[in-house]
Amino acid sequence: MKSKSLTSKSIALAGLLSVSLGISASALESGNQETTRPNFIILFADDMGYGDMSIFGHPTINTPHLDKMGVEGQKWTSFYVAAPVCTPSRAGILTGRLPVRSGMCSDKRRVLFPNSNGGLPQSENTIARVLKGNGYQTAAIGKWHLGHKSPYLPTDHGFDSYYGIPYSNDMDKVEQTDHFTLAENERFQAYNVPLMRDTEIIERPTDQRTLTQRYTSEAVEKIKTMKDKPFFIYLAYSLPHIPLFRSEEFKNTSLAGIYGDVIEEIDWSVGQIMKILQDEGLAENTLVVFTSDNGPWHTFKTHGGSAGILRGAKGGTFEGGMREPTLFWWPGTIKSGVVRDMATTMDLLPTFCRLSGTQIPDDRVYDGYDISPLIIGTGKSKREVVFYYRGQKVFAVRKGDYKAHFITQNEYNSKTAHPITKPVLEIENSPVVHDPPLLYNVNVDPGERFNIAAEHPELITEFKEILETHLAGITPVENQLEK
Amino acid sequence: MKSKSLTSKSIALAGLLSVSLGISASALESGNQETTRPNFIILFADDMGYGDMSIFGHPTINTPHLDKMGVEGQKWTSFYVAAPVCTPSRAGILTGRLPVRSGMCSDKRRVLFPNSNGGLPQSENTIARVLKGNGYQTAAIGKWHLGHKSPYLPTDHGFDSYYGIPYSNDMDKVEQTDHFTLAENERFQAYNVPLMRDTEIIERPTDQRTLTQRYTSEAVEKIKTMKDKPFFIYLAYSLPHIPLFRSEEFKNTSLAGIYGDVIEEIDWSVGQIMKILQDEGLAENTLVVFTSDNGPWHTFKTHGGSAGILRGAKGGTFEGGMREPTLFWWPGTIKSGVVRDMATTMDLLPTFCRLSGTQIPDDRVYDGYDISPLIIGTGKSKREVVFYYRGQKVFAVRKGDYKAHFITQNEYNSKTAHPITKPVLEIENSPVVHDPPLLYNVNVDPGERFNIAAEHPELITEFKEILETHLAGITPVENQLEK
Repeated sequence: MKSKSLTSKSIALAGLLSVSLGISASALESGNQETTRPNFIILFADDMGYGDMSIFGHPTINTPHLDKMGVEGQKWTSFYVAAPVCTPSRAGILTGRLPVRSGMCSDKRRVLFPNSNGGLPQSENTIARVLKGNGYQTAAIGKWHLGHKSPYLPTDHGFDSYYGIPYSNDMDKVEQTDHFTLAENERFQAYNVPLMRDTEIIERPTDQRTLTQRYTSEAVEKIKTMKDKPFFIYLAYSLPHIPLFRSEEFKNTSLAGIYGDVIEEIDWSVGQIMKILQDEGLAENTLVVFTSDNGPWHTFKTHGGSAGILRGAKGGTFEGGMREPTLFWWPGTIKSGVVRDMATTMDLLPTFCRLSGTQIPDDRVYDGYDISPLIIGTGKSKREVVFYYRGQKVFAVRKGDYKAHFITQNEYNSKTAHPITKPVLEIENSPVVHDPPLLYNVNVDPGERFNIAAEHPELITEFKEILETHLAGITPVENQLEK
Repeated sequence: MKSKSLTSKSIALAGLLSVSLGISASALESGNQETTRPNFIILFADDMGYGDMSIFGHPTINTPHLDKMGVEGQKWTSFYVAAPVCTPSRAGILTGRLPVRSGMCSDKRRVLFPNSNGGLPQSENTIARVLKGNGYQTAAIGKWHLGHKSPYLPTDHGFDSYYGIPYSNDMDKVEQTDHFTLAENERFQAYNVPLMRDTEIIERPTDQRTLTQRYTSEAVEKIKTMKDKPFFIYLAYSLPHIPLFRSEEFKNTSLAGIYGDVIEEIDWSVGQIMKILQDEGLAENTLVVFTSDNGPWHTFKTHGGSAGILRGAKGGTFEGGMREPTLFWWPGTIKSGVVRDMATTMDLLPTFCRLSGTQIPDDRVYDGYDISPLIIGTGKSKREVVFYYRGQKVFAVRKGDYKAHFITQNEYNSKTAHPITKPVLEIENSPVVHDPPLLYNVNVDPGERFNIAAEHPELITEFKEILETHLAGITPVENQLEK
């Protein structure tokens, strides 16, 4: 899983890349690099499921802008996050490393809470810090959830600016106040969540009804003010994490109820961002990535989403917990179509470095691979394996078509976690170790229905070796979530 | 559910329609009607599930031509068949009437078998017969399954020609021969299924490996020979009904295994048909509809498909049994996009009549509605209700957002019918009557997870009235499946 050798060559390869991107070498040489290096935008939904947009098969949620992004760009159908819950998933996408390497996952506390004292350590490099070192402007907008005290805030981690809520929108719950006892337009007051600009709290409780709108305006303004030099924007929507809120314009407009309203407002937001990029002439020089931080939160029934054809949900290591609806958009450069190769959020850091000619600090292990050949259509990724962590433990491993579950456990310690379906395999609230592991062919059987371990003893041996080698490369570090 | 009043005006409205279609009234008046009236092609898969193509969310089955059809044309997400199994579903699509009206469904025998003596009665009018009466050329290709003896064959029912197998590809099983004991290239010999041209058997057993290819060639040839006058082609693929077969070119080419190979060959076939229409300059004058006869056959595990986000499968009245992945294509005339309105296969007969200025015999009840306003983008359908029949009984009724299950039953009398998922509600092998009925909001909750009957007593009353009125309008007829 080490990608050092890939990334250390990135500067040397920048000239080569510019050819395949249609950027002339002379433009790079003449010092115009700042206008030819691509901008990067990550749009990161919260708890959106694999099945929650039209292009991924939802029958009633209307997502014309996301669909357009997928048709003009790429729809990725095997794109994973680093963890099935919020905090470690975000540590993974920003550092290009498994959260176990930064102490950002725990078997005791699954995420950071308002009373947590830890956060993403300063010893970690984020995409923002690495790109900033190469002259990029950087902005974080939305949910952070990697530590709400210095030195853990976005502006401590390479972002020039921050606007958003520092943790989940269901935290800071006002004692004794039941969300549903309040009138709909007052419900946000049941959560005393702060809204921050850079390091200051500017509103509390945050009026969550307009949060998607305000994040969108902030992103549009940032694009306008940063347009003359390369930029990186990380926009992490606070929704559709419960409690669900949407603006007046999106109230009761979706066939799919309030959850549909919320997704349709996010779809509108994505449309606004595509539009400003086109209006400003930036679209052909900007790579936009849309994905979600983990699977749908089934516990909340119609206020949670759906993993579609996949089994499982947020919190768990079946596919529905960690495989996300992912789109890449970059008009003029991207090779349009469906990409079925495996990739993860941790691949974005080395990929952005590769595309921008940025050197990655060569002093640590990365878990990401350069996926630019898949985006541009010139080749494959070097990724062969995905690890499915729950807390600090590897529960499952995928290599190629196959996935081995060494441990399984009910997603949210609740028998209601599967309101649709009780799997054939009874999932226990406490971890169940499988030896031999359960084995599925997830390309033939994406719903993980048919355990074929008995037919493939050779694969069982191989998976055990892969896991053993991987675990030997993990060095214990201070745990941030238990602080 | 009577649509007599809609269809009796069809001739009178033909002039009006020609305007909205961009066909000049003078062209119609000058006798050029035959070249301006649209051609119709129905592509009807067998046992393909709601989730089995990329544009409906399948992660690994590669369906570029179907996806293109959906992006250039329309993707319908609430399109139903008349029954969750083969024979009655086919009676429904061809007659525009519920199979209970033609005696083509039974509580005792779900479909026709090689030893059956019945079939679609001569008293029924098919789309072919009705269009033929207005000068259309007509061809049936593929699986028939509406009676394999005269006067039940395609050529007895308004089709000028027929090429295909008269019933399912798993029938006429050779005694004692297990499919899997034969070499892969000999497996088709385990099913002594006849291949027919018009009324003659021309091959037995049918070499099923090349069946999709041969159906496609037949369709391409028919398009070439019929291109100078309006035509209707009904191409009912024999697959992906088990046993699965595909040609050498599609062997082991799909990431999704043999089921994926089979769907990808059907996708190729659809691409060939779109291509010949374009090459011959017919695409802008031809409405192509793709759908499936019922949901996926879960009993057969990885040899069966998937209903994606929907609950249930072939044989049952949950959505997965009867809601199908449906595409409409008509370049230049269709309003591209996702259509979430309810429609059914029974709507095709009145719609084709409307679009071609054909009068429907006004002597019977139809269960279909003209959906041309939805295709062209000029308005809505008059459909408000869908009935879910299993055999001769109504098990469920949908109106708008809501669906009431009066009776539920396990799809295939087998506990393995749900290998993915055991629903929260235990589905029994024998019918279970619900009073009050189970009530779901299928737009908010497409997986039919949350019974909300207790919250909506007024809807329960309304649904009971709808069912009572409907049943009062059904006249008993001779049963064809029990003959």
